Amino acid sequence: MARTLVYPKVDKNTVHRKSDRASYDLQTIHSIINATPVLHVSFNCSDLEDPFPTVLPMIGTMGSFEHPSADLNDPMDCYLHGYVSSGIMKQARSRAEKGLPITVAATKVDGIVLSLTPNSHSYNYRSAVLFGYGSLVENLEEKIWAMKLITDSVVPGRWDNTRSPPDGSEMASTTILKVKVVNGSGKVRTGGPGDEKKDTEREDVVERVWTGVVPLHESVGEPVRGGAGRVERVPEHITSFRDNVNETNEEYARTAAAAKGSAGNAY
Amino acid sequence: MARTLVYPKVDKNTVHRKSDRASYDLQTIHSIINATPVLHVSFNCSDLEDPFPTVLPMIGTMGSFEHPSADLNDPMDCYLHGYVSSGIMKQARSRAEKGLPITVAATKVDGIVLSLTPNSHSYNYRSAVLFGYGSLVENLEEKIWAMKLITDSVVPGRWDNTRSPPDGSEMASTTILKVKVVNGSGKVRTGGPGDEKKDTEREDVVERVWTGVVPLHESVGEPVRGGAGRVERVPEHITSFRDNVNETNEEYARTAAAAKGSAGNAY
Repeated sequence: MARTLVYPKVDKNTVHRKSDRASYDLQTIHSIINATPVLHVSFNCSDLEDPFPTVLPMIGTMGSFEHPSADLNDPMDCYLHGYVSSGIMKQARSRAEKGLPITVAATKVDGIVLSLTPNSHSYNYRSAVLFGYGSLVENLEEKIWAMKLITDSVVPGRWDNTRSPPDGSEMASTTILKVKVVNGSGKVRTGGPGDEKKDTEREDVVERVWTGVVPLHESVGEPVRGGAGRVERVPEHITSFRDNVNETNEEYARTAAAAKGSAGNAY
Repeated sequence: MARTLVYPKVDKNTVHRKSDRASYDLQTIHSIINATPVLHVSFNCSDLEDPFPTVLPMIGTMGSFEHPSADLNDPMDCYLHGYVSSGIMKQARSRAEKGLPITVAATKVDGIVLSLTPNSHSYNYRSAVLFGYGSLVENLEEKIWAMKLITDSVVPGRWDNTRSPPDGSEMASTTILKVKVVNGSGKVRTGGPGDEKKDTEREDVVERVWTGVVPLHESVGEPVRGGAGRVERVPEHITSFRDNVNETNEEYARTAAAAKGSAGNAY
């Protein structure tokens, strides 16, 4: 029961710096991806004249269409929604069965770690990166499943509380990118400041400098009515989303700030 | 006085989708970079066998060492702090005067836009991307200037409220990456939901679905003391940082939610 799946440690994903903060557990990495409202998706255009990777902010979530009961500790695909130019998608199509090489990155900052000296300052954070091959979801059944998955990953229950499913033209105009993940890694820092002896032993420094953690977290504010809907009362799927997110985020940041075992100096 | 500098619109940075949300103003783009606590920095390893861009979360800020009085509407460099492997840095050094091609991305999610149908759902957001050539800062005077700039970009005034400047070994162990920006673009969405007539005219839909914006913003929590410092009272540079950030972020998200001029359908 307590099996833990990990991504293979190869040169590409091995964390060399502060390796005590590294994680290769699927569960940890997939959770960070899912907890992040926007992912940064990076890939290269085929134009070799262009040396800069393209980076797009996209909404995404982990899922398994083949094994819908998969949990975050299982191998999963990453489904992404967001505009990707048709040129890029043609490339993804043309690169045979493997698809477009894509790096998906997610980072949450949970606190600012303020130590005695700037060099030991750090963030409490959770970051994850996935490497995989992206292709367009063409199968209609999988596409609509992924659209619901992504919508509900933003606000649980939202799909069923809207005019759904999409009609034919909406299905046609939506692109869902599926990244078949081949590897990944994560990195997590929690805890208070860690300073070196050369500073902690200096009376003039410890008497003068405030040290600790300033927690940072995403907050959900009061919903603002707008648009064409005539429902006045904010429905339960939205209020419970707001309450859950606020409670979870605030508690995580506070717990991370108070955690034992700060890790050395700067990030 | 009202001059507005813009990045050149070339194929690489031109926003084709929802181009009414696009911005090429230096001021807009640089402000988004500076307002984001973590940047996603993407580049290619020279190893051609590896098709995946590397993406690292880094702390960074805009600045101009040559023209310290430059404001956000002026041409600026992007200074980054965070671990970059020595192999990568060797590459940056070896690529002659131009440096390592780097894409810097910053995204802030300001709200979840909930419309009648999943296809019209969106985020209010601010995103920016910069393309440039990265190299290590070797000049000691510039390096210490950049370290202060970056530290104070996280919490204003922090540098002077710590044991600073760094000593020789700290200077040697810190790497600061300077990205000479050659181009960039930004994209901003504010406002409420935009639905299509086919839904706004359906009584059964508008009577059933709540529409509006759920504001999202980063919050700064109560500072948690820890580490070696003996100062008990949270100093003013931290409390005013907390108050300013909370007020600014909350107000931005609320104002964005209530802004006129929603833009069509999905992101």
